[in-house]
Amino acid sequence: MGMRRGTNLPRMGDFNQSVILETIRRSGEGLSRIELVDTTGLSAQTVTNITRRLLDDGFIAEAGRTINGPGKPRITLRLVAESRFSIGVHLDPAVITCVLLDLAGTVVRRRAVRTPSSDPHRIVDTMAQTIAELIEDAGVDRRLIEGVGVAAPGPLDAEKGTVIDPPKLHGWHRVPLRSALAEATGFDVTLEKDTTAAAVGELWTGQGPADESFLFIYLGTGIGAALVRNGDPVRGRSRNFGEIGHIIVDADGPRCLCGSRGCVEVVCTPQAIVEQAERAGVFRDDREGSDVESVEERFTQLCERASAGEAPAVDVVRRAAANLTILIAALTNVADVDRVVLGGPFWSRLEVIYLQEIPGLLDARSATRALHTLPVDGTVVGDDVGAVGAACVVLDSVLTPRASDLYLED
Amino acid sequence: MGMRRGTNLPRMGDFNQSVILETIRRSGEGLSRIELVDTTGLSAQTVTNITRRLLDDGFIAEAGRTINGPGKPRITLRLVAESRFSIGVHLDPAVITCVLLDLAGTVVRRRAVRTPSSDPHRIVDTMAQTIAELIEDAGVDRRLIEGVGVAAPGPLDAEKGTVIDPPKLHGWHRVPLRSALAEATGFDVTLEKDTTAAAVGELWTGQGPADESFLFIYLGTGIGAALVRNGDPVRGRSRNFGEIGHIIVDADGPRCLCGSRGCVEVVCTPQAIVEQAERAGVFRDDREGSDVESVEERFTQLCERASAGEAPAVDVVRRAAANLTILIAALTNVADVDRVVLGGPFWSRLEVIYLQEIPGLLDARSATRALHTLPVDGTVVGDDVGAVGAACVVLDSVLTPRASDLYLED
Repeated sequence: MGMRRGTNLPRMGDFNQSVILETIRRSGEGLSRIELVDTTGLSAQTVTNITRRLLDDGFIAEAGRTINGPGKPRITLRLVAESRFSIGVHLDPAVITCVLLDLAGTVVRRRAVRTPSSDPHRIVDTMAQTIAELIEDAGVDRRLIEGVGVAAPGPLDAEKGTVIDPPKLHGWHRVPLRSALAEATGFDVTLEKDTTAAAVGELWTGQGPADESFLFIYLGTGIGAALVRNGDPVRGRSRNFGEIGHIIVDADGPRCLCGSRGCVEVVCTPQAIVEQAERAGVFRDDREGSDVESVEERFTQLCERASAGEAPAVDVVRRAAANLTILIAALTNVADVDRVVLGGPFWSRLEVIYLQEIPGLLDARSATRALHTLPVDGTVVGDDVGAVGAACVVLDSVLTPRASDLYLED
Repeated sequence: MGMRRGTNLPRMGDFNQSVILETIRRSGEGLSRIELVDTTGLSAQTVTNITRRLLDDGFIAEAGRTINGPGKPRITLRLVAESRFSIGVHLDPAVITCVLLDLAGTVVRRRAVRTPSSDPHRIVDTMAQTIAELIEDAGVDRRLIEGVGVAAPGPLDAEKGTVIDPPKLHGWHRVPLRSALAEATGFDVTLEKDTTAAAVGELWTGQGPADESFLFIYLGTGIGAALVRNGDPVRGRSRNFGEIGHIIVDADGPRCLCGSRGCVEVVCTPQAIVEQAERAGVFRDDREGSDVESVEERFTQLCERASAGEAPAVDVVRRAAANLTILIAALTNVADVDRVVLGGPFWSRLEVIYLQEIPGLLDARSATRALHTLPVDGTVVGDDVGAVGAACVVLDSVLTPRASDLYLED
């Protein structure tokens, strides 16, 4: 029927516990019980009960006293980062990146291995082995690991736990990635789009307000978008929010297989930008391969030349920034967010020029420029945002308060 | 700081009351207390207490008994439609439409008047007078009216309660529409984008599940989009969600003032479609004016000729459907919704051909077509969806359960 459900009184306590843990985690320095009362709006008695439970479970610890005038000193409560961990895996056509994250969102260990050629079983085995090495290497108790998050290029079949049509990984769609990896590792596995994972990573480890709204633009082998609205990642009805490959950004751009011209997929991807640079004569020699690695090598060269101020390279990257702005403006004018965050494996090479170009161009195209500015930031997470984000998805699902937890179950 | 707040226990009762009222309202035929327990998940005691309060307040009434085997007969509880009302106003460059809606979402009275030329004070006076006539005409007790909703073309300044740059209404932005109309009528006034209002109207009066997600495409003098996600309208941080005028849909389309080519604004609006028809030789005579009314007259002729099967007219409308599909696909591939709803003042004239063309074209462009189909429906609300939706916004804000009500206030 899809009717709305009443409130779930027994789960209120869990929700409020998540609110308090999130508040302590995001404070960095820790907070006293009185500060928690102020920040969460909960009663002193509720805060005392919940913090006692969190202390018992080892999530938080007492960390010093502050004497502040007469009366009882305030005890600071701080997150115990090493109380829980999660694992994030980023499946990329070229590289599989695995990270072990602690509760504070810090990367404890990292490993990257070349993606084995198309045999899906070997890919799952490689992931499982890398995860096992990561845990052993870090010397972390397996029982403290909340689960494994896998970030993969969309679209995904969330119910079956499979990637529908992964680039350069033919035959993959027949493999139930989530269950195969769960079996191989013994952990709960969550499958998430790389773009959504990246946005959750930004939300979890970033310094923005807990309830902010931002658009995340993911610059990988493909280009994707994700949305965080009032502190909640927006996933869509089949968890495939953010498929933006066929939005038209350049009416003078090349033909796309979809029948249109100038789609994101044929204008904004690293491969498309490299081809523009080749046509503009940035490189003196011809490219040797058309595989992911040769494209990435050329892309790196292009960005280096642009950073060194070589005019043709600068022009190509500036043009790419302008084209990407058309996409960003289309999405921000639709979604009406607080700010834009750019990230993904190709981001750091573009950062300097993109942050010079995009904010001004975007402001000129903003439908709400009379009302507010639209800040554009680079991700705080770095190039591993896919893997880190996947690990954050696990922590987020376990530890972040969600309104949906407040309803009675169907 | 924007930290998350704890749960607001005293307001749980209000939330659950809204859930029960919504469930009874959406049932149409009414429900027994036992059916309410099943549907909402709330306890029998809670349902009994809340329904007693709703009976006392006159929102619902007992409406017959069903004997169903041995034991006590079940008493059906039904919405009392005439227990509360709201008023909706649609501000359009050509026409101001006002409706009086009852709690069941039925239009009790309707009035439309020509929009006075650019003097904003005369527009507010006209609205206030029309509202007064509507109430008198219907013989409704003013105290039962929850408020006035005004739907206007965006972008809006929600804080100041003004329309930023309304088409053909110069000087308007200096007028605080919300407060001026509140003063002139004595009612609380809510200002909403016409597109969002239309989506709320569809949600409130439609037959879909209470928690569905849909994209609403609004076909008015301008084209807009709105999103309902899990039963909640998505408004954006400045309540300007859905500004889609400069998304490119036709790389071969005409130049737009924004610098791109083939934007929605120069391809998909009624004016743009009429110009395409003129270039295609659909009309033998020249158009007399370029004002909103002459364009609308021509648009009606085009649609009549297309409905009659005249080939050049059919081609133009089919082409318009294909262009609109590029926009819809861009938005549905981003937002990943259950279905698409089309509506707005120009919808009924396009309905037959658009519903033949769009579903197939959209399916071919859907990033999730391997996972699910994407139904395309016409609005159930009719041409007055702006005004009806604005009235629904008022009822919705007063009567629909919202997760945000569950948190402690900042």
